[in-house]
Amino acid sequence: MIAPSYLLGDIARKLGADLKGNPQQRITGLATLQCAGPEQISFLANPSYGKHVATSQAGAIIISLESAALATCSALVMDNPYLGYAQLSHWFDTTPKGPVGVHPSAVIDSSARIGAGVSIGAQVVIEADVDIGDGVVVGHGCVIGARTRVGCDSLLRPRVTLAHDVVIGQRCHILSGAVIGSDGFGFANERGVWHRIAQIGRVVLGNDVEVGANTTIDRGALDDTVIGDGVKLDNLIQIAHNVHIGDHSAMAAKVGISGSTRIGSHCMFGGAAGVAGHLTISDGVQLTGMTLVTGDISEPGVYSSGTSAETNRQWRKNAVRFRQLDAMARRLKELEKKSEGRGRST
Amino acid sequence: MIAPSYLLGDIARKLGADLKGNPQQRITGLATLQCAGPEQISFLANPSYGKHVATSQAGAIIISLESAALATCSALVMDNPYLGYAQLSHWFDTTPKGPVGVHPSAVIDSSARIGAGVSIGAQVVIEADVDIGDGVVVGHGCVIGARTRVGCDSLLRPRVTLAHDVVIGQRCHILSGAVIGSDGFGFANERGVWHRIAQIGRVVLGNDVEVGANTTIDRGALDDTVIGDGVKLDNLIQIAHNVHIGDHSAMAAKVGISGSTRIGSHCMFGGAAGVAGHLTISDGVQLTGMTLVTGDISEPGVYSSGTSAETNRQWRKNAVRFRQLDAMARRLKELEKKSEGRGRST
Amino acid sequence: MIAPSYLLGDIARKLGADLKGNPQQRITGLATLQCAGPEQISFLANPSYGKHVATSQAGAIIISLESAALATCSALVMDNPYLGYAQLSHWFDTTPKGPVGVHPSAVIDSSARIGAGVSIGAQVVIEADVDIGDGVVVGHGCVIGARTRVGCDSLLRPRVTLAHDVVIGQRCHILSGAVIGSDGFGFANERGVWHRIAQIGRVVLGNDVEVGANTTIDRGALDDTVIGDGVKLDNLIQIAHNVHIGDHSAMAAKVGISGSTRIGSHCMFGGAAGVAGHLTISDGVQLTGMTLVTGDISEPGVYSSGTSAETNRQWRKNAVRFRQLDAMARRLKELEKKSEGRGRST
Repeated sequence: MIAPSYLLGDIARKLGADLKGNPQQRITGLATLQCAGPEQISFLANPSYGKHVATSQAGAIIISLESAALATCSALVMDNPYLGYAQLSHWFDTTPKGPVGVHPSAVIDSSARIGAGVSIGAQVVIEADVDIGDGVVVGHGCVIGARTRVGCDSLLRPRVTLAHDVVIGQRCHILSGAVIGSDGFGFANERGVWHRIAQIGRVVLGNDVEVGANTTIDRGALDDTVIGDGVKLDNLIQIAHNVHIGDHSAMAAKVGISGSTRIGSHCMFGGAAGVAGHLTISDGVQLTGMTLVTGDISEPGVYSSGTSAETNRQWRKNAVRFRQLDAMARRLKELEKKSEGRGRST
Repeated sequence: MIAPSYLLGDIARKLGADLKGNPQQRITGLATLQCAGPEQISFLANPSYGKHVATSQAGAIIISLESAALATCSALVMDNPYLGYAQLSHWFDTTPKGPVGVHPSAVIDSSARIGAGVSIGAQVVIEADVDIGDGVVVGHGCVIGARTRVGCDSLLRPRVTLAHDVVIGQRCHILSGAVIGSDGFGFANERGVWHRIAQIGRVVLGNDVEVGANTTIDRGALDDTVIGDGVKLDNLIQIAHNVHIGDHSAMAAKVGISGSTRIGSHCMFGGAAGVAGHLTISDGVQLTGMTLVTGDISEPGVYSSGTSAETNRQWRKNAVRFRQLDAMARRLKELEKKSEGRGRST
Repeated sequence: MIAPSYLLGDIARKLGADLKGNPQQRITGLATLQCAGPEQISFLANPSYGKHVATSQAGAIIISLESAALATCSALVMDNPYLGYAQLSHWFDTTPKGPVGVHPSAVIDSSARIGAGVSIGAQVVIEADVDIGDGVVVGHGCVIGARTRVGCDSLLRPRVTLAHDVVIGQRCHILSGAVIGSDGFGFANERGVWHRIAQIGRVVLGNDVEVGANTTIDRGALDDTVIGDGVKLDNLIQIAHNVHIGDHSAMAAKVGISGSTRIGSHCMFGGAAGVAGHLTISDGVQLTGMTLVTGDISEPGVYSSGTSAETNRQWRKNAVRFRQLDAMARRLKELEKKSEGRGRST
């Protein structure tokens, strides 16, 4: 693998950044302020890292106008340096691209439609009437069920499972081990015995959706499970049947959304947060890590639940009191009454 | 795919429902009350949805005798409308059925016994001495380890892993990405270094068990991990080694059961609930979502722990007090003593 | 499969145990005290199981010197009986070993280097410039990305995914469904829209690392994600990008470690514990199950958060008071002031 190499002037032009420095300077890598060397470019996105700018060995830095004075090396000045970093990161991406064409070990039903410029890896299985859009990459070992559609330029990493009748938008990125469109968890109980309910809805993903490794998105029971445009889901997330997630919401790893819940747009959920079923969560709701939501949320804002770690020795004392909390509240009320009575009597 | 079409009289007969309407009426789909059209059938299972009956465009509705008066369309009257819906759902299931036979890309050890009417998908691997019962479907990309037995009419969706010496009962349904029989998490510590313990038990699943997508069930350390008849496990669940789960218990996504714990029959665990190791949980225990169980539960009933979401602003104030809870309890006690002394003195 | 059979004297010699009994005694299995029969060996590691020794039918027992007097059968006396059990367990392991060689259905790039004595299963995919060390086993259906290195004697169970540029040490054990090296969850936000950041770091695993079934370890954004020697990770764990885990730390199932957090050595995290991002956790920290860590921990010890299950009826009363906790604390303070004033005035 030959290391990439760019001229600083070309980078500045591509990012739309204002260059303070030599446009002929050669850049061969991208690194953090602490790790970057003289041929590497770095960035200052979080002002609290400003202290590292002076001591950084970076050859150039992407930086905001407000912080630009800190830079002692070449500077690419732009409004949103983190966005600049995001854009530039793809220039240094070493992810191998699968070759255009179909690997001979792939098993593809003759009725499947395969677009132009598609790469299909080894050991793939594609069932009947699947539609693979132009420029799609299907990684090794993926399985795609009947009638599923994958939009143009989407990227399926190795070992993704798409069940039947799933719709994937354009430019989606599905990571390894993800399972999209498996059966929702629906059963009817008859005298203690569970009877399975066939899940006849679909999963529909918008454009530019990210689905993390080993994340599961269940198909709808009757209607569809719907994931909006630009939604980003981290690893090991569970999206149950009939859930709707609004555009550009992002969820960290291990989040779980129970059946039929509707999540608004531009939400941000911290790791392992959970939302109960049949709820409505408005746009712009943020949940901190491990928060449990058991009721509707109708206002944007940050929400939390639970407690955070203390020494086990202290925690044991406090946790046992949690079980006495209602009693404590009543005793407090009682004392207040007495105190007031006493106040009045004196 | 040709849409299915049935006569209402045939549906009523099959469900054992009392038909109020024209038995010749044609039904081509199943939908919610809000979405159903005049050729579709719907159901009223939850009385709180009763308000949707009057405005529904459904051509027919499965409904209880108590609610039947609400229906303005044809009605299929039966005791458990949700069960009727469950049964009928399979008539409209569009999941493709794999063809009977073995896909040529499958790798099957010559010692494996393959029953009658079995469908084995592409890219499957089946090791030595595996026994696949009659009518089993093995989805694409599944791997089945040596000596494992899969009971009649069980359905393995694509990319399931069954390790060696696993026993799967009849009519089980194993969803994509599930791993059954991988090694339990057992190590002996010697001066800070962990030494792996070979996991020589098995996993034994009863009949009619559902295992969700990307769920993991570990093999026993010495004895077996045992999942009873009719148990339903949702996605991303962890069942550790030596766990026993009683018949007809159901667990929502992301539940975790630690090693050697015994769960009774007819339990229902909400999403992300967790049970510590070496515990005994009686029959009929229900856990609400995210509940943590750290001790035995000997009585049926509903159990909970944790707190639920409030605004982060409020939560920060309350959560910091949680750490003072024991101190608050002591101060409260102190005040009560004083108050009592004062009461006595006056 | 022929059952293994050993002489007790050979076992004692191998474990370095002091044998009280007949070295010619034949041992054909390993079982718990309650299940062992006269041809089986058992062990007493937890003193609380001492009561089972007298009634056990075991033919021999691995036991400490302090407890040896309890044994009525042959005894293998050693300091750490649990370690003895761990060592002996491998003698009775029935996991099938893949044959040395490459299965004809495997797809292996011609530039890959395959060591001596390697076993590569069916339906495997190995990309360009991969380096597989001597004695490695690659289970069926694994996918190994370009330039990834797997150290000698490591064992990949079926359906593991290693992305490109991953480094796996020697004697590692990677369980089915694990995904190592998938993209970290990194996005830059521009006016509400998320832009993906290419993840150009690697994942580097030390020697003797265990990675559980369906566990995900993300590659670094710029630097590497680093897992130390002897680290043991259970199933369904999420390790985010840039995380470092110190040597010999162990984490139970469903733990989540957020991005850029550094975990020390010899830590032990209970099931479903979670650590927020950008934190530093010292050596020797233990977290109980479901604990949430939101700040640095600089001292070894046991830490906890949350509450544990009580009846839902009681819990509802207490949980509602949690939201009043700050108000209660203020009211308590107020009463104390009054009480003190009253004390002074009288």
